[in-house]
Amino acid sequence: MNMNFNLFTSTNLLFGTGMLNELGKQKLPGKKALLLISNGKSTRENGTLNKVQKQLEEAGVEYTLCANIHENPTKEVVMEAASTAKKNSCDFIVALGGGAVLDSSIAVAAMATNPGDLWDYVAGGTGKAKPLISKPLPIVTIATTSGTGSEINCWGVISNNEANEKIGFGGVPELNPVLSIVDPTLMLTVPAKYTAYQGFDALFHNTEVMISKDINILSETIALSAIENIAKYLPIAVKNGNDIEARERVAYASTMAGITMQLTSTTAKHSMEHAMSAYHSNLPHGAGLIMISNEFYKFFIDKHACDEQFIKMAKVMGIKDADKPEDFLTALYNLQKECNVENLKMSNYGFTIDEADTLATNARETMGGLFLANPCEMTHEDCAEIFRKSYR
Amino acid sequence: MNMNFNLFTSTNLLFGTGMLNELGKQKLPGKKALLLISNGKSTRENGTLNKVQKQLEEAGVEYTLCANIHENPTKEVVMEAASTAKKNSCDFIVALGGGAVLDSSIAVAAMATNPGDLWDYVAGGTGKAKPLISKPLPIVTIATTSGTGSEINCWGVISNNEANEKIGFGGVPELNPVLSIVDPTLMLTVPAKYTAYQGFDALFHNTEVMISKDINILSETIALSAIENIAKYLPIAVKNGNDIEARERVAYASTMAGITMQLTSTTAKHSMEHAMSAYHSNLPHGAGLIMISNEFYKFFIDKHACDEQFIKMAKVMGIKDADKPEDFLTALYNLQKECNVENLKMSNYGFTIDEADTLATNARETMGGLFLANPCEMTHEDCAEIFRKSYR
Repeated sequence: MNMNFNLFTSTNLLFGTGMLNELGKQKLPGKKALLLISNGKSTRENGTLNKVQKQLEEAGVEYTLCANIHENPTKEVVMEAASTAKKNSCDFIVALGGGAVLDSSIAVAAMATNPGDLWDYVAGGTGKAKPLISKPLPIVTIATTSGTGSEINCWGVISNNEANEKIGFGGVPELNPVLSIVDPTLMLTVPAKYTAYQGFDALFHNTEVMISKDINILSETIALSAIENIAKYLPIAVKNGNDIEARERVAYASTMAGITMQLTSTTAKHSMEHAMSAYHSNLPHGAGLIMISNEFYKFFIDKHACDEQFIKMAKVMGIKDADKPEDFLTALYNLQKECNVENLKMSNYGFTIDEADTLATNARETMGGLFLANPCEMTHEDCAEIFRKSYR
Repeated sequence: MNMNFNLFTSTNLLFGTGMLNELGKQKLPGKKALLLISNGKSTRENGTLNKVQKQLEEAGVEYTLCANIHENPTKEVVMEAASTAKKNSCDFIVALGGGAVLDSSIAVAAMATNPGDLWDYVAGGTGKAKPLISKPLPIVTIATTSGTGSEINCWGVISNNEANEKIGFGGVPELNPVLSIVDPTLMLTVPAKYTAYQGFDALFHNTEVMISKDINILSETIALSAIENIAKYLPIAVKNGNDIEARERVAYASTMAGITMQLTSTTAKHSMEHAMSAYHSNLPHGAGLIMISNEFYKFFIDKHACDEQFIKMAKVMGIKDADKPEDFLTALYNLQKECNVENLKMSNYGFTIDEADTLATNARETMGGLFLANPCEMTHEDCAEIFRKSYR
């Protein structure tokens, strides 16, 4: 077991049912917030936006609403939100939403205080990998879904559609949110399908950490607890969105991945899905991950790359007497069936099987670093073959 | 299971063998450090002080050495160190040492920027419980022992000998160290006896968290991992101080307690030991805790206050088929024997049995808050009786 690690999750996390009501009592990191939300209707219709606005008033801060973030957010919407922040002299960001909004807030915080374009600072693909010059705006996150983990870490994934790139941006401690509220009551209205997609994203953050070369004693301890809770409670949350205990448990697992991913890198599966969404921006991230998951893990299991890690995961996923890595594949497929996501098809999102090579190239060019975290080598052809075998 | 919690461990933690060598590469939070160490010889003799000085030079910061901290540190040494920081225009603190130094640094950081006396700000006993007016100095901690946990949290325990009080000070996020280095190689020279005392302090931080009313899903996950590692590796570290794996595992458990204690309050045992050290300042904190531990836990086990928690702990402490809370007492006594601390006697430190009532009064008057975290009521007489039954 690797005993060395760097824990730098500095976010003050208020986790649990009812915690949104605590926002107004917090000392917020500025006087005027850019209140960043999605371009959808949910936070307006379910009353969450209104509650947050009241809490911000109670905290004595002003805000400018910016409602432009869409699924698989692009650098254009990030730059637009950053410009809104500048024009309105916002001195901090309140990000209210799911993965798209929370991930975007990391990039908006940086671009509200730094010159040029986001892709000047992105490391990977056509990004110029410059260091940030100025301190980003402080970020407050309020999560409305359970998936991304970026509510308490300094990473956000942004797309550059022109270049067919979807890349993680951030990774410096100054971009860690200063305050995060994860209140599972805000998640009760997430539809079953998205509950499943997001829950599997949270699951895979933790399962990838578990097989990562960088796994260490702390990330393993937290990841196993997260995986156990998702395996047990995600099917319940999918079947009955109003089950608050199930929402709490899945939210816990998702937010903990924000810590485990910062302790230990995820693996190439995340690069591979980013390639899929980069070419098919209508594909939800979680759905893409599910589509390639069985073949991805089977690759490492067949190579006996980290048998013990797979067995540990299978055990906490309900196969108590697991004794071979293949048991993890059984547990994973069972969970997919319980959550009604075992039959997702790439073809339904416009993929053709001959894209496999292009996707494998893109995965390595945009986020090749994650391949280094794989528990054994995965060549370009291995990667393309996983796409082909996953194709339906 | 309580699913609500507030995680506010904001420290950037560099954990593991060799991590001290990373200090010089960090961006430190000031230009001139108060380098706080104990009045003993160990860090000078084993070369650690020298290594830290070189790293600070590499980081490009100046420092003023302040070597006045003794075991069970008093408010007088805290005020003296704070005065040294002010006189020398230090703008941050580097605390290099064990529990006494790390705990003191929290109080020194506050008193270097705030007026009056430390006891103006202490909440409990004769303390005036005023809020801090000015922002404390930023703190960097470098741990040389495994016990306190204060290397990554905002609590430090200080004694007021005049008032016979030993009280935890802090508890505000501004006092969280900004950077902490926990390098187990610095602990190889700790003598066996102190390795055991400190290791049991770390154990009890986690076992008290486990039986606390405030236990939650995250503190339990981390605490159980810590307890498992101490049970397995503390006896090895005591027998062979040079076993680096054992030192790593015990250090991990100790530092994790810094997180679990901030997530969940410890219980009255810590108040009770503080009363013991307040009247007998020659008593090491860990030794005092060990002396009362068996009777303290037995009290709650006899009341069936939280049977499941005791069984969970017994299991990770090696009694795999544990099914009753008493199994925890067996595991605890076995660990004491393996670490040669099963026969510690209060009488060896000058206690008499008729002090029990005074100690029970002091425990409640100085740190009564911890009694509220107990899993069931413990009256003054219950508390006195635990001291009496523990007396040898």
